[in-house]
Formats: sequence, C-alpha cells, structure tokens
Amino acid sequence: MTTKSDELEPSESRVTIARIAAETGVSVPTVSKVLNGRPDVAESTRARVEAVIGKYGYRRRADERSRRSRLLELMFHELESTWALEIIRGVECVARENGMAVVLAESSGRHTPGQSWLESVLARRPVGIVSVCSDFTGGQLAKLRARDIPLVVVDPAGAPGPETPSIGATNWQGGLTATRHLIELGHRRIAMIGGPEGVLCSRARIDGYRTALETAGLAFDPALVRRGDFHVRAGYRELASLLTLPDRPTAVFAGSDLQALGVYEAARDAGLRIPDDLSVVGFDDLPIARWLTPELTTVRQPLQEMAAAGARLAISLARGVDPESHRLELATSLVVRHSTAAPAHRGYRVLTGGAR
Amino acid sequence: MTTKSDELEPSESRVTIARIAAETGVSVPTVSKVLNGRPDVAESTRARVEAVIGKYGYRRRADERSRRSRLLELMFHELESTWALEIIRGVECVARENGMAVVLAESSGRHTPGQSWLESVLARRPVGIVSVCSDFTGGQLAKLRARDIPLVVVDPAGAPGPETPSIGATNWQGGLTATRHLIELGHRRIAMIGGPEGVLCSRARIDGYRTALETAGLAFDPALVRRGDFHVRAGYRELASLLTLPDRPTAVFAGSDLQALGVYEAARDAGLRIPDDLSVVGFDDLPIARWLTPELTTVRQPLQEMAAAGARLAISLARGVDPESHRLELATSLVVRHSTAAPAHRGYRVLTGGAR
Repeated sequence: MTTKSDELEPSESRVTIARIAAETGVSVPTVSKVLNGRPDVAESTRARVEAVIGKYGYRRRADERSRRSRLLELMFHELESTWALEIIRGVECVARENGMAVVLAESSGRHTPGQSWLESVLARRPVGIVSVCSDFTGGQLAKLRARDIPLVVVDPAGAPGPETPSIGATNWQGGLTATRHLIELGHRRIAMIGGPEGVLCSRARIDGYRTALETAGLAFDPALVRRGDFHVRAGYRELASLLTLPDRPTAVFAGSDLQALGVYEAARDAGLRIPDDLSVVGFDDLPIARWLTPELTTVRQPLQEMAAAGARLAISLARGVDPESHRLELATSLVVRHSTAAPAHRGYRVLTGGAR
Repeated sequence: MTTKSDELEPSESRVTIARIAAETGVSVPTVSKVLNGRPDVAESTRARVEAVIGKYGYRRRADERSRRSRLLELMFHELESTWALEIIRGVECVARENGMAVVLAESSGRHTPGQSWLESVLARRPVGIVSVCSDFTGGQLAKLRARDIPLVVVDPAGAPGPETPSIGATNWQGGLTATRHLIELGHRRIAMIGGPEGVLCSRARIDGYRTALETAGLAFDPALVRRGDFHVRAGYRELASLLTLPDRPTAVFAGSDLQALGVYEAARDAGLRIPDDLSVVGFDDLPIARWLTPELTTVRQPLQEMAAAGARLAISLARGVDPESHRLELATSLVVRHSTAAPAHRGYRVLTGGAR
C-alpha cells in the first residue's frame, strides 16, 4: 500500500543516473522519468536513454526496489477457457496471501506482449510479472532488468531465454503416460493431435507419445500425428480427417481437453461411440473433463499450482532471494475415467458399413 | 500513466480538508493520508476522520479526481467457471480500449468485499470499480463516494442501493421464455432449480417460471421448485431428489448451465435419456452448453457485454458524465439446441420399471 512519490531520491544511485544523463545529454529528471515509465518523454529521447541504461547495465538500488507498489502483473496471450481461470486463481491466491493485488492483461493472442503494456507496467512499478506469454523481446527484458522487475513465465509456449525463470509441467512424461495407457489397453493405431507448431509443451507431448510407441515396438506413423491449436474446433477437424484414413485409429491422444471435446463431437457426428469404438485421452484435466459424457480420461496438469509457484517465485525474486532453480516442472499424472477401453468392439464397421 | 504524488494540493479543496482536520483534531496531512488509503494512520484516528468526512459529505474536487491511476478494479465473490472468465474478458477489453489495466480481486466467496481490499483500492486511486459483489456496507460506499471512485455492480446477486448503478440481464424474461418453450413442447410437470435464497437474479427467474405456468393455466407446484447454488453438484442433488417424486417432472429448467450439467449427470445415473426421457433448459449459455451431449438448450445471458457495459459506465462516471439510467438490463434470449423435446417417450418406465 505504498505507492509514494515516483522520483528517485538524491542518493548514491544518482551517480549512475547522472552518468546516464550526461552521456545521453538529457537531465537527471528525464532519466528518472524514463525509468519510471512516465509518458511525458519524447520517444527518441526515451530510446536513447534506454540504450545508455542498457550499455551500463544500470539497475535500481535495493532501497529503490523496496518502493514497489503492491501489484503483481499477470499477462495472458489469450483469456480463453477455464485453462486461463486456473492460472488466474493460482496467482490471485498467492497475491492475496501477500497483501498484493493482481493486474490482469491480455495481449490479444500474440505471444510477444505489446509495447504499451510494457510501458504501463514500468509506470506501475509492480512487485513482479507472471506471464503466460514467453516471447519477450531482448529490449523488453532489458527494460525490466534495469527496473529490477522480475519476470516469471508459466506454462511457456516458447522457450524463454536462460535468464527468464519459468514454471512448467512434465509434458513429455504426460505424453508418454497417456500413450502407454492406450497401448496397455491393446490399441495399436493411436493418433495424436498436438498443439501449434513451435509451442514447446506440444513438442514435448508428441515426443513422449513417440517414445511410448517406439519402446513398445510400435511403428511411429506420421499420418497419425496432427497439428491443432489446443481448441475445440481443431480436435473436431483433425478427428474428422483421421477417420477418412483407410486404417483409422482406434484411439486418440487429443493433446488438450478442449481438443478432446472436439474429438467427442466429431466421433458423435460419425456415429462412433466413446470408448466402445474410439478411446480418447485429453490433457490438462480442466473441470470439463469430469462433465463430459463419458467422463474424460486425461493427463492432469496442475495449472493452479504452477501459477501459484510462478507468483511465489516472482515475489521471492523481488525480495532479492535467488531461487535454487530457474526452471521448475511440476508433475503431471494420468487420471483414468471412462473415455478409454480396449479396442475390442467393432461397432464402427457395423454402423457405417466401412471396411478396415 | 499518471500516478504522481498522492498528496492533495494546497488549493480551494484545502478549506474543506482543513475543516475536517480541525474538527477531528488531527493535521491536514493526516486527513490526506486517510483519503489516500495510506496505511500509516492509527485505526482509531482513521475512523474519526472517516466519520467527519461522512458528516460533511466531503468529495474530491474535479481536478483532484483527474489524478487517478489508469486502473480499473474488478471484484468477484468467487472466481469459478467460465462465467467469471466472460466477465473478466468484457472488462479487460474495455480497459484496454481506454489504455487502462484491470486489477482483479476475489472476496473468497463472500458477497461483501473485505476491508483490506477496500483500503488497498483507496490507495490505488483507480478510475472505478466493477464488482460482482453487490453487498457493500454503507461505510464502504461512503468511503468510495468521498474519493469519488465510482462503483458499478454487474449481474448483482443482491439488491444494490439506489445510489449504486448496476448492469444486469432480463432474468425474469429469461425464466418466462425458458418455461414457455417447455410448455409449448407439451410438458406439464416442469421442475425449476433456482439459485441461493436471497439472490435476486434467481428470484426473477423463478418468478418468470411461475408466470409462464400460470398464464398457461398450469398449477404452480412448490414441490417442483428447488434451491441450488448455481453449481454442478446442486443440479445433481436436486434432480436426484426430484426423480423420487411419485409424479416426476418430464422437464427441468435448471436455472444455470452448471446446474444443467449436474442434471445431465443425475439423469444419466438414473438411466434417463435427454431429451427423450427428460428435457433440460439451462441459463447463461457458457461455452460448455455447446459441448455437452446433447447440446444444451439454454437462455443466453450476454455476460461479456454486461461486463463491458459496466466498465464503460464506471469510466463515464469517473469523467463526470452521469448515465441516463443507473439500472440497465441487457436482453436474454432462448437458444434452442438438442436437450429439449416433446414428452412423448416412455423410456423411463421401460428402463426402470417405475410407475408414473
């Protein structure tokens, strides 16, 4: 509750700020304004000051850092589905425990946050940032470093650089476990619907799927591996396409619960019963997994706990405590419900007259 | 982006602050601190200052008001289900359009926000508050009024006082339309699962249900009207109980999509098919309504639009623009999908051997 004056105090830190001011050819208050994200500085001046700040690796002093507001920033690339809600709840809970408030923003689907958002964050002087977007530019990271605003990425889509701490889940292990479950039930034609190309958590799940097949002595068939975007429609589209294969899969690892939902719809439209004619495994364990008919077998990803761990890490970093590790992966676990069974039934052939 | 010094300027407003200071027997800066929600004031002093502020009806001057931060506060009683997410998206979108950020808080299920949250809001000096909690205390409202922080309640559970603007939906009309749809299909035994006692939107839906029955010449049977809490389990529990009635309902207006989900589960467990053996209508039209099997017929409530309208209203009020109306109800509409049908089938009797 201590958003006092934004100005830097005339103290030892002035030496550095004075040097930056002198080198840039601007006044000390102008450097302060840039540091504090104030809008009343010309863009060209701001860029020159930032360049010199970067050159000297200037960082706020510890007593300056303590003048943060009691805000924790939370940045999404998109606010969709209960996936986002689980993340929000995890961060909000930790913020409340620490007497802080959560500022929420969305980057309209882009994985690199916008510049105006970043400037507004600098002006708010938050404790730290928890972000689902992982693709911060080098310039953005440098600005945050100079103000000593810690950034933690949760469930990263891309690969944050080595200096950015991140909290993820054991995606590879999840893909492996889901696929082994289907193999143990007796499935041999197992399809996989991944996420967008370049999203690392999706790559990890696909690699786990592949390893499960190969260690079981099953061939990896590229025709059975599809790309989605983790949303419902992609699941529908890809299963519909998979069902046109001459040797259609008897099981699908859908890559996300929402894609599993689309798979359910496409299966229904094709007259297939789950799990009799098709087994389905999701990923995430959103509340909806329990509400589907039949209830969805899925890989639980502890989203709330991941978000809470991210918030705690940001707060620790703001207090100057360095974490033991900058990468943390929380465990995934398979939750077996009613959407998976042995591929014994031949309902599909009877219903549609199609041949295998 | 203008969180400057928090202190009030020495100007005409000082006359009033000075009077408050004199009457309370404290210094002018102390009154300023209380107005700005600063923590370094003794609780007893704060209470005395607040009392005198209330007595004189002190309000910040217009030029003081313009020194707000670019924050919009969003307060939930609970962050559950995509219902909350729809509200968040509506507010976030309007905030972004206006170059503002959203501060999110949850009151742990209580409908009256906590005192520490309110003090932190005063310290942040936001543009305004959009709240789903409607039960602010008189003291809380007075504090907001003195700082000229507008409050708008969205989808109010209780009845905010006449001075608090609110944005709702036409709940009564929604209840009426849902029930008429079932009557037109031929149903005569129609159950209704409402929300918690005292939640007005639930009362309005029940009243619409009752009016639909009575204008159709059907008796209102209190045994068919149940109380839930808008969540999945209540739907399950109440349908399970309704199915034990000697003359069980052939249709249920579930009062919320989540309760409809519980109704689906209970129907499945009882061996009833939807809509063959039981018709179900929800309320809200959350994304899940389209994902259920069969897809849910429901009353669409434009939650995102309601939240956006609430945010716009708060921003207008902060700019000194008074709205034409302090109550706004956005229209609900019936979305007919596949969970409702004529009560022609007798599957229940055959399946369970039960008599009507």
